[in-house]
Amino acid sequence: MNTITARKADHKIDPIHLKRWSSRAFSGRPVEDAKLQSIFEAARWAPSAANWQPWHFVYAQKEEDLKKFHSFINENNVEWCKAAPILVAVISKTTRNDEGDANPFHAFDTGTAWGYLSLEAARQGLLTHGMGGFDRKKAKEVLEVPEEYEVQAIIAVGYHDPEAPLSEKNQAREIPSNRSPLDEFLFEGSFKK
Amino acid sequence: MNTITARKADHKIDPIHLKRWSSRAFSGRPVEDAKLQSIFEAARWAPSAANWQPWHFVYAQKEEDLKKFHSFINENNVEWCKAAPILVAVISKTTRNDEGDANPFHAFDTGTAWGYLSLEAARQGLLTHGMGGFDRKKAKEVLEVPEEYEVQAIIAVGYHDPEAPLSEKNQAREIPSNRSPLDEFLFEGSFKK
Repeated sequence: MNTITARKADHKIDPIHLKRWSSRAFSGRPVEDAKLQSIFEAARWAPSAANWQPWHFVYAQKEEDLKKFHSFINENNVEWCKAAPILVAVISKTTRNDEGDANPFHAFDTGTAWGYLSLEAARQGLLTHGMGGFDRKKAKEVLEVPEEYEVQAIIAVGYHDPEAPLSEKNQAREIPSNRSPLDEFLFEGSFKK
Repeated sequence: MNTITARKADHKIDPIHLKRWSSRAFSGRPVEDAKLQSIFEAARWAPSAANWQPWHFVYAQKEEDLKKFHSFINENNVEWCKAAPILVAVISKTTRNDEGDANPFHAFDTGTAWGYLSLEAARQGLLTHGMGGFDRKKAKEVLEVPEEYEVQAIIAVGYHDPEAPLSEKNQAREIPSNRSPLDEFLFEGSFKK
C-alpha cells in the first residue's frame, strides 16, 4: 500500500519533499557508513548566522550506545524507534564565542542543518524520523553534553520497511501527514492572522 | 570569477548544497510569482514536532513593503539587500494551542522550513541570503506580528548578479564560506569536546 501518493504539492517543487516523510516502520538493515557520513555532510553545508555553525550531532549505532538513547527517549517512541539502526541527538551550541555570549540563532540554525540532513537522507533512500518526545535533561547527562549546549531533537535513521511490525496504534499512524495551505502561513506586507 | 569551485564536500551529497551560498550581489530582476510560490511550498513540507508547522512568512515585493523592511534591518545589511526584489520575514509561532502552551521546538522547526526554502530556491536558480542583523522588536511592530510569534530571520531573495555594485567591504566578502570539518561536530556515543 503506497499512501505517499496522497500528498500533493500545490506548486512545483523538487519531488523529494513529498517523498520524505516520518514513518515509524524501520528495517533493522544497517546503514552503510558512506551514507551516514553523507547525511551529516549535507547538514554541514547549512547556512548559519555569521557562519557560527552551532549544530553538533551525537550518534549511536553500537548496541550499547543505542541502549543509552533508549533510556532518555519517551517510551511510546522507543516502542518503534528501537528498530532503527541509528539514533542521533541533534545538539545546538547556545554560545557564539569563548566569552559565552549568546547565539540567539542556535536553535533556528540547527533546525536548518537538520532539514538538510533529512533531505539528503531521503535522497539516499534513507528514512529519518525526528522526535521531540525525550527527556532533554537526561539526554544531556547521558550523552555528556556540556552546559552551554542544548539537545534539540532526537532522530531515528534507517531503511524503511513497510512490513515492519508495529503496534496497532502506530500502524494507524503510518500515513504521511498533510500540511496547512500556503495562505494560512504566508502573507504579503504584514501579518494577517 | 567563479569562487564557488573552492568549496568541496568530503562526502557524496547533492551538489545543490555547494551551489547554494549567501552572496550579497543581487540583481534587480523581479522574481516570477510561480518561483516565489514554489520556495514557500517547499518550506511547507518541512517536518515539525507533532506536525504543528510553526513557520509563518511575511514577504515584501512592493516598493512600500520593501521600505518597511529596510526600516528594521541593520544599516550594513540594507546597503546590499536593498537591491533584492523580495525580502521575507521568517516567523515562528511560539505556542502550540489555543491555551497558549509553549511549543519548545518553534525556532528549530522554523529553521528546518527555512532550510527547505533555501534549497528549493537554489534549485530554481534563485539566491537567498539569511540575516540575523535586524531589530527583532521593531520588525514585530512594523509587520504587525502578534505577541505569541517571534521573527527568527530576514531573508533576501532574488537573482544573483555577480556584477552588482557592492561596497569594497561587501565585495571582499563575495566568497562562499567554508565549514568546519565533520569530526569537529559529529561524535559517536557521547559528546567529545
